[in-house]
Amino acid sequence: MNLSIHSAPDRELMVAKGRSHPELAEAIARELHIDLLPTTTYDFANSETYVRYGESIRGTDLFIIQPNATPVNESLMELLLMLDAAKRASVGRVTAVIPFLAYARQDKKSRGREPISARLVSDLLATAGADRVMSIDLHSPQIQGFFDMPVDHLEAMPVLVDYVRTRVDLTNVCVVSPDAGRIKVAEQWATSFDGCPLAFVHKTRDVTRPNQSHANRVVGDVQGRDCVLVDDLIDTGGTITEAAKVVLGAGAKSVTIAATHGVLSPPAAQRLHESGVKEVVVTDTLPIDSARRFAELTVLSIAPMLARAIRTVFEDSSVTSLFDNNGT
Amino acid sequence: MNLSIHSAPDRELMVAKGRSHPELAEAIARELHIDLLPTTTYDFANSETYVRYGESIRGTDLFIIQPNATPVNESLMELLLMLDAAKRASVGRVTAVIPFLAYARQDKKSRGREPISARLVSDLLATAGADRVMSIDLHSPQIQGFFDMPVDHLEAMPVLVDYVRTRVDLTNVCVVSPDAGRIKVAEQWATSFDGCPLAFVHKTRDVTRPNQSHANRVVGDVQGRDCVLVDDLIDTGGTITEAAKVVLGAGAKSVTIAATHGVLSPPAAQRLHESGVKEVVVTDTLPIDSARRFAELTVLSIAPMLARAIRTVFEDSSVTSLFDNNGT
Amino acid sequence: MNLSIHSAPDRELMVAKGRSHPELAEAIARELHIDLLPTTTYDFANSETYVRYGESIRGTDLFIIQPNATPVNESLMELLLMLDAAKRASVGRVTAVIPFLAYARQDKKSRGREPISARLVSDLLATAGADRVMSIDLHSPQIQGFFDMPVDHLEAMPVLVDYVRTRVDLTNVCVVSPDAGRIKVAEQWATSFDGCPLAFVHKTRDVTRPNQSHANRVVGDVQGRDCVLVDDLIDTGGTITEAAKVVLGAGAKSVTIAATHGVLSPPAAQRLHESGVKEVVVTDTLPIDSARRFAELTVLSIAPMLARAIRTVFEDSSVTSLFDNNGT
Amino acid sequence: MNLSIHSAPDRELMVAKGRSHPELAEAIARELHIDLLPTTTYDFANSETYVRYGESIRGTDLFIIQPNATPVNESLMELLLMLDAAKRASVGRVTAVIPFLAYARQDKKSRGREPISARLVSDLLATAGADRVMSIDLHSPQIQGFFDMPVDHLEAMPVLVDYVRTRVDLTNVCVVSPDAGRIKVAEQWATSFDGCPLAFVHKTRDVTRPNQSHANRVVGDVQGRDCVLVDDLIDTGGTITEAAKVVLGAGAKSVTIAATHGVLSPPAAQRLHESGVKEVVVTDTLPIDSARRFAELTVLSIAPMLARAIRTVFEDSSVTSLFDNNGT
Amino acid sequence: MNLSIHSAPDRELMVAKGRSHPELAEAIARELHIDLLPTTTYDFANSETYVRYGESIRGTDLFIIQPNATPVNESLMELLLMLDAAKRASVGRVTAVIPFLAYARQDKKSRGREPISARLVSDLLATAGADRVMSIDLHSPQIQGFFDMPVDHLEAMPVLVDYVRTRVDLTNVCVVSPDAGRIKVAEQWATSFDGCPLAFVHKTRDVTRPNQSHANRVVGDVQGRDCVLVDDLIDTGGTITEAAKVVLGAGAKSVTIAATHGVLSPPAAQRLHESGVKEVVVTDTLPIDSARRFAELTVLSIAPMLARAIRTVFEDSSVTSLFDNNGT
Amino acid sequence: MNLSIHSAPDRELMVAKGRSHPELAEAIARELHIDLLPTTTYDFANSETYVRYGESIRGTDLFIIQPNATPVNESLMELLLMLDAAKRASVGRVTAVIPFLAYARQDKKSRGREPISARLVSDLLATAGADRVMSIDLHSPQIQGFFDMPVDHLEAMPVLVDYVRTRVDLTNVCVVSPDAGRIKVAEQWATSFDGCPLAFVHKTRDVTRPNQSHANRVVGDVQGRDCVLVDDLIDTGGTITEAAKVVLGAGAKSVTIAATHGVLSPPAAQRLHESGVKEVVVTDTLPIDSARRFAELTVLSIAPMLARAIRTVFEDSSVTSLFDNNGT
Repeated sequence: MNLSIHSAPDRELMVAKGRSHPELAEAIARELHIDLLPTTTYDFANSETYVRYGESIRGTDLFIIQPNATPVNESLMELLLMLDAAKRASVGRVTAVIPFLAYARQDKKSRGREPISARLVSDLLATAGADRVMSIDLHSPQIQGFFDMPVDHLEAMPVLVDYVRTRVDLTNVCVVSPDAGRIKVAEQWATSFDGCPLAFVHKTRDVTRPNQSHANRVVGDVQGRDCVLVDDLIDTGGTITEAAKVVLGAGAKSVTIAATHGVLSPPAAQRLHESGVKEVVVTDTLPIDSARRFAELTVLSIAPMLARAIRTVFEDSSVTSLFDNNGT
Repeated sequence: MNLSIHSAPDRELMVAKGRSHPELAEAIARELHIDLLPTTTYDFANSETYVRYGESIRGTDLFIIQPNATPVNESLMELLLMLDAAKRASVGRVTAVIPFLAYARQDKKSRGREPISARLVSDLLATAGADRVMSIDLHSPQIQGFFDMPVDHLEAMPVLVDYVRTRVDLTNVCVVSPDAGRIKVAEQWATSFDGCPLAFVHKTRDVTRPNQSHANRVVGDVQGRDCVLVDDLIDTGGTITEAAKVVLGAGAKSVTIAATHGVLSPPAAQRLHESGVKEVVVTDTLPIDSARRFAELTVLSIAPMLARAIRTVFEDSSVTSLFDNNGT
Repeated sequence: MNLSIHSAPDRELMVAKGRSHPELAEAIARELHIDLLPTTTYDFANSETYVRYGESIRGTDLFIIQPNATPVNESLMELLLMLDAAKRASVGRVTAVIPFLAYARQDKKSRGREPISARLVSDLLATAGADRVMSIDLHSPQIQGFFDMPVDHLEAMPVLVDYVRTRVDLTNVCVVSPDAGRIKVAEQWATSFDGCPLAFVHKTRDVTRPNQSHANRVVGDVQGRDCVLVDDLIDTGGTITEAAKVVLGAGAKSVTIAATHGVLSPPAAQRLHESGVKEVVVTDTLPIDSARRFAELTVLSIAPMLARAIRTVFEDSSVTSLFDNNGT
Repeated sequence: MNLSIHSAPDRELMVAKGRSHPELAEAIARELHIDLLPTTTYDFANSETYVRYGESIRGTDLFIIQPNATPVNESLMELLLMLDAAKRASVGRVTAVIPFLAYARQDKKSRGREPISARLVSDLLATAGADRVMSIDLHSPQIQGFFDMPVDHLEAMPVLVDYVRTRVDLTNVCVVSPDAGRIKVAEQWATSFDGCPLAFVHKTRDVTRPNQSHANRVVGDVQGRDCVLVDDLIDTGGTITEAAKVVLGAGAKSVTIAATHGVLSPPAAQRLHESGVKEVVVTDTLPIDSARRFAELTVLSIAPMLARAIRTVFEDSSVTSLFDNNGT
Repeated sequence: MNLSIHSAPDRELMVAKGRSHPELAEAIARELHIDLLPTTTYDFANSETYVRYGESIRGTDLFIIQPNATPVNESLMELLLMLDAAKRASVGRVTAVIPFLAYARQDKKSRGREPISARLVSDLLATAGADRVMSIDLHSPQIQGFFDMPVDHLEAMPVLVDYVRTRVDLTNVCVVSPDAGRIKVAEQWATSFDGCPLAFVHKTRDVTRPNQSHANRVVGDVQGRDCVLVDDLIDTGGTITEAAKVVLGAGAKSVTIAATHGVLSPPAAQRLHESGVKEVVVTDTLPIDSARRFAELTVLSIAPMLARAIRTVFEDSSVTSLFDNNGT
Repeated sequence: MNLSIHSAPDRELMVAKGRSHPELAEAIARELHIDLLPTTTYDFANSETYVRYGESIRGTDLFIIQPNATPVNESLMELLLMLDAAKRASVGRVTAVIPFLAYARQDKKSRGREPISARLVSDLLATAGADRVMSIDLHSPQIQGFFDMPVDHLEAMPVLVDYVRTRVDLTNVCVVSPDAGRIKVAEQWATSFDGCPLAFVHKTRDVTRPNQSHANRVVGDVQGRDCVLVDDLIDTGGTITEAAKVVLGAGAKSVTIAATHGVLSPPAAQRLHESGVKEVVVTDTLPIDSARRFAELTVLSIAPMLARAIRTVFEDSSVTSLFDNNGT
């Protein structure tokens, strides 16, 4: 008897884009030396979203590049529809590449009768069919635990550090955290800058007098230093520009701001432009349109790192060993 | 030994609103002689949605009124967040009242590599925590089967019929279906009009010559009749205005259009206004802003029917026996 | 350190049969040039079903051929048992090949307090362990949405068309739909017949007079034509034979009936034999025993198409591109 | 503000029947002094099953009486459809009352590549919507563990014992197990008979000589005794009639057989009738048609016990304390 | 027809204890004026755990009191078994009352290839059958998001504050956070102390010189103050005793330590006893055996708060309004 | 267009150990000629368990060797944590190799209000992420049905038989079952011993007199025989040593005991040593520390069998054909 047909399996990596950040998707594809999977995506008259893949994805290892750009509910729903379509089209495995994950700041109940929106988002992704998620610098590390599936959690710091170190005098640099909660990240930066000094801005209502008016002050010596303020994201820019002013007021020679995610909701561009900082460095985890740009802004590409991570996941090597101390 | 504390349980009905159609929610609450549950809902700078209930909902039988109005992805996501918050706030049972359900027209794969978006929406509602769904005139009856939970499926026809019969000469009326696929509904209308005549518009590319140019024509005698064109929804109004013109061209005395859902995406208002029809009757399953209104439009309130259905579900009577032949 | 053993994976396709249609399974195996997996299947004294695979299926890509032939509950339960056995025997992936899916006509609640049986069947298949389903011409396209798993939905029309075009005079043919709901399929047929004329039978209670006695009539010109009546299935044959009589009564030269699924429940054979039609063409998605056969019946084999689809799924090519405009 | 409507909840018990054992369902309803819920159940021409409840069951505590009578796949599928219909009709809680559970003897893999059919059945019941199951004398107690939901497991022994003690001379009785595996149950019987003697039939291939021909023999003294042979079910009756003959051959004065489930597949009636036993006592967990009956057969009604258990579950008292040492 | 039996439902609250903290369970029962549900719990020879409820719990609202005391795997597994037994015994609703939740400090992947143990624990509780969880001062607020079920999250601060304010001179008190990460909690304390001064201990490797040896210092003025050091838990006491020494070294008049969870793993008792602090105040969320006690230790009972929360959940009032700004 | 990157997949087998039986894991790795995956595993001060894999396991076929040794809750929880870590580290497939499965004797509800602990354990393993389970000689075969995933169920008998046949005079051997319930296994042994005689010990309270004091006796002729007593496990050794004494008392020349699992909880070692048996043969499915050992004990290694099974699963061959008649 001849009971079966044998074949040697082949694995095939494909990359598709949603509409929230096509430039990033194209840059990743270029890094991988492939073309993006053709997709059709548009909205019906009543704003319902339509998606369709233009080529067969049967059995492939598909990566969909779709950060949760503003408007986040649109970009999230489009991603969910793309996942459903992929599942029904017999994809082999599908990874939602979401460099910036929406709702990550709503990761707990600050008050009763709120949702835990970040957990909801993780459940929606699973329901729609995601097999795994790749993201960058989640707002809190606990969010990985909201997912029941594997998460490849990358860190943008190496990209930011490599650039910033070419822009400051390493013998005169000082890393500054905009509040007490981010000191740990600032320490990592200082280590990368050959053990440079650290400082942080204390949001204090006179720390020793609760409930009084704010009077932020710098802890650490920034006098005459080239200061680098670091954070995970810049949304409206309120906190970070206030910190920059305090640092400059404390005698810093210059202030450079470095953050992973450039959300840059208005009036961030105006605020930052007027804040007196020398340069604001972010990555392109989110698209940054002209209204969000300003003279001092530098946008670094995260595409090479994502391309390497995608390739690594495809080939089952360890993302941990390549990029961060947090991976798998 | 005294092993337990006893208490007689009490059931408590509450109604909350999202932002997609507050007028409908308020009308329902008025019908029920209660106030809406206070809720806080707004968007963050980067468009993330925030929701919170203002009062305890522990153990209650909560109904959230949120049709999938345009922009549908926003209203859907807001509903999902409200469901998550309800679940985490120990609601007793939560019903998503979605008079118009988004994505219902994407209920199958018309081509390969598409999502089945309506099924995805039903799964997202379940994931977020909905215990049951109440909706009106789903685009296809199979959509009930996309849900694993009970669905209360209401029909708006009684509301529409009661009004329209006061507006037409019942001795001279003729019910017209805009295409062959809706004849069954038209038959129900005709029955409600004491067995009046029926007609339908045939989208024909000369029915007997495939692939030729369209040449719609009326099947049935509309000459001199007060015609009522019936459909489930009016989106951009293309099909229905074309049908109205054909009916008028065939000698109808007047044309009245009746549909459940007034989506009325532009240029529906203009098209309908210029179509020569006498009146366009829809219900308020969706909000209809001033840009969607036009002189000939009449909007009937579905709130009394929804209020009765909510009360019935709360009291465990049969929705079937009250409203339709399709319920439970 | 030597931490692992490596091996190059091998994929292996196997085909097994249940008892509902062994001829079809054997035909498919022949097309694939393999033997069917040996299985033991019998009923215990009290009618409980027993199944067992005769050879190891570890890691294989198994396809079980089991249309829901009458008695459908028996064939369905046998399929569920085979799926459970496959899962527990460490199958790699198992596809339920169900050319005719039972309960597909119960795809909605026509009245309150009914089940949605087609959805239940899809859930039972998932529970028992099916990874994917392959079926042909589902009664409504929404049924794909009842499944959470990928569905390969094939169309039998090419097989039927290829045969019928050898049996009719293409210069004199007319495609006829037995009711208004099937016109779309009839249009596809007409296109395949080089754009031949179309007609359809109107189930009319005088369409313009609701609730009156039926008086079917043909819309379109069939006079002197070789007519081809098309439908998805023939169960007791009531509708289709009535349509055939109307078409003949309208002066058709001949009537040929073409349908995918030959359910042919009694008295279908007698009705069709006595209906005056020239030929009735169905496929072998279901077994057709001698009691269901009659002189005018032609049964085309669907096995080559299924074999190609199975091979394609096994090799991860696109079923869409090969067979239909609906696949993946 | 008046945020809610209050109401005092009411609980409502209803009982419905499938077609596998209407007499039992009616007897239970009589015991509860209610009427059965009207249901419509029939088969379509191609053997698909149709079910519908005739009255609203919203919010009720519904019990569906449907033992897995032969043909078991039909009765099981009908039950699954009734569960799906109940769920979609907004039942409050639904209990599948399955006095005899099919496939319970297939509760393990005796050989590789078999299903574990009893586990599959439990999963199918959960998928279809059962909230809980009530059954009697499951073939192995581990089957309770196949269910993730609560199982009310009743024992028929009290009913059987009460009857049999009126039919035998308690001073001369001996309880006999048909094989070594059932001795524990026989001990419970003996205890109920005031500590009467026990015996069992040894299926021995000369116990000390493996693989030799069978030579059953009685262990224990049955000489001149009124013997009661006990088992959980009688299917074709092969084992039990053989045991009866051995016991009679060993000098028993009489043999009475007692078992819970009277499956009685042919040729059980003939075998038992010709076996020389005085009486065969079973309960009506299964319907026993005339072809399954014979002169020596006595059928006891299990309806009063089931009615009490249903009432107890409805009222949340403990089934354990009323009926057995195994409940909850 | 009489289709149903009606009954007015009754709700019944019961409280059961596992073996990890019987004193707390008994104190809660006393507060509620009921007796604990009798339970049998012991270990078999090979250390497998056995549990059984001594009375029927059908339909009850059961609360199981079982903090994850050391050994945590034992207490967790015992809780899981109690949940499984409750589910199978037809409990109405079961709440796992886990005042101290194990593995809460493993709430993220600090490095690749670690588990997220706190998420695993939440999933295990759901799998075993918990309907809801009640806990106190979870290590990070994101852990609520690990649960898909409602969590009643209570805060012990009011209990601690009420006691401590009787032990210090409110005109001379200063609240001290043992590290920067806990300042927010310290602020809440200071507010409760009528806006007293705040300070915190800075774990600094000279904050401005990364990677140098630790040199903790106090930020804020503690000179001559009665200082209250606050934290969520004290495990081995290393961090907190170091902080106490620094505060005393900075001239504090006295140091009182207040923490919710007294884990007090050795050598905590010795360290704290020798640290020079005036008093160490914890609650009894965990049992504190004699080896964990020392002269300066004060244990406050959390039982009244838990009893009120249980009663509130039972009666569906809002836990939020009673206890914290975080509830539901 | 170039839409994809192709690669030929590679499969990689790895073996990791928990702390419950490192010797067995190492022996298996030796058999496979690989090194164990480095892992870090320790307990925190409060007894919480920490695990981490030392190398990437992305995409691998990982086998974790962790029998449920005493303390079983510790070893089980450690296994669950290892599974969670594996899932989150993107393992390809993970098999929990649990030669001795805890709680297998709690496979049913012996009384109301107990858990079904073995089912709970199977659900916990699935929740933590196990894709499949491998075990040896489960206490009851129904336990396989508690798992929804594939179970590779091996039998240790071949290993035991091969050894014992070198230790007894095959012409004078007699296989003895310690009670009636194990006769079937004893028969398999006798077959392996060329059809030697069988006997069993009857736990009798005079079998024919219920409720009287025990008086065990041997059924079958053991006089002068070299007897082999067989069982699945030896826990405290009570039953088996009693049986041994009865057999010796009945004139056996010698008694050898053979069992798969050497749980050997105290006072098993003492009891067996003093029982007069010649040899006690078990396998190393569990670690046997010095306190559990005694002069007469022989421990056979199960590692070669497990290594072959692991290799077979990795290579997708049939475990059934190699080892037992029960596999897949």
